[in-house]
Amino acid sequence: MRELFRANLSRLGKDLTTIAELVHRAADDARAALETADVHRAEQVISEDARIDRLQEQLDEQAIQLLALHAPVASDLRTVVATLRMSTSLERMGDLARHIAQLTRLRYPELVIPESIRPTFHAMADATVDAAAQVVLLLETQDLGHADSLSELNETVNEHHVSVFRAIGAPSWTESAATTTDVTLASRYLERFTDHAVSVAGKMRYLVTGQMPTHQSA
Amino acid sequence: MRELFRANLSRLGKDLTTIAELVHRAADDARAALETADVHRAEQVISEDARIDRLQEQLDEQAIQLLALHAPVASDLRTVVATLRMSTSLERMGDLARHIAQLTRLRYPELVIPESIRPTFHAMADATVDAAAQVVLLLETQDLGHADSLSELNETVNEHHVSVFRAIGAPSWTESAATTTDVTLASRYLERFTDHAVSVAGKMRYLVTGQMPTHQSA
Repeated sequence: MRELFRANLSRLGKDLTTIAELVHRAADDARAALETADVHRAEQVISEDARIDRLQEQLDEQAIQLLALHAPVASDLRTVVATLRMSTSLERMGDLARHIAQLTRLRYPELVIPESIRPTFHAMADATVDAAAQVVLLLETQDLGHADSLSELNETVNEHHVSVFRAIGAPSWTESAATTTDVTLASRYLERFTDHAVSVAGKMRYLVTGQMPTHQSA
Repeated sequence: MRELFRANLSRLGKDLTTIAELVHRAADDARAALETADVHRAEQVISEDARIDRLQEQLDEQAIQLLALHAPVASDLRTVVATLRMSTSLERMGDLARHIAQLTRLRYPELVIPESIRPTFHAMADATVDAAAQVVLLLETQDLGHADSLSELNETVNEHHVSVFRAIGAPSWTESAATTTDVTLASRYLERFTDHAVSVAGKMRYLVTGQMPTHQSA
């Protein structure tokens, strides 16, 4: 029974990593679609998100079955509960990649992001894709160095997010209101994306160290 | 042991309702602060959100203890897992009320929402406060009529959300870029608020009927 539990728990961890890999690919494709107004790639992100949702539902069902069958306690129980939480964050990250892709599709064949602010968005999108990659590595290795990297990437994204709002508020900003709205939303989506990545890192940190992340640090 | 489990599960449900009541008050105060540029009330929402966060952490800890102690199965297990999920949604609703309050504080003594679009925001904010009230009633009574009301309120909010973007895109929109950003974010926060309320309703519907909500309907 113990061995079966270990096998089921290990499968749960692998399935969580698979979802994280799909989220990473979604982030990468959403970034590429945004930067090149590639509507086909945007469509792909949108349709792939349904797959992430389905996998998350299946994983949650597995986790509940595992609780019912094995009634784990202590750290095993916390691992299962943390997995449920991490899958929720990953699912939201998939949604946010989809939102970026939907903006791209909405404005096609125009680019969503106006030229003046493209370097900022390029850096911000880079950091979010990197964050998604770090989540995969963190889940695979449980090496908290990746959690530290995620905190740094989150700070980078937050700084860019603030600088987007600063650019919008500057007298030199002459874009249309619709563009301003798009830029605001895109920046918010990217900022939330890394927030969720940091939330996954907080759960993993807790599993590895036993230290509960506070709402401030998570 | 069975009686103790029932008592603990009932306490968990009551604590979840308490959080929902705080979220309802936060939504109500955030709406009032937004509409009257009441910075004190905004500050109150912001500081009260820390309390919601703390209560949610405590409730999650209780839920984990309950799983460890009683190892519930079948519908009891699903109730505990659904409670964990609903508490996450409520915590996010509290965050979104705080975000509205933060916008209010940022622009004080100015009003965040320009006059032309105030009726739309008034109706939208009304619907979100109503949604928060429906969540409380749903948790208290498990009457799925409240879940139906939540679906309707969510549709109302979504329609207003779309009409905000339509207003921003219209030639008659002459607001500054900073105001456009504020309006975009405020509308997004309210839209997400009711999304989370509908997500709580989906979990409750599942507990009562055994029907899993899909990502589309939840």
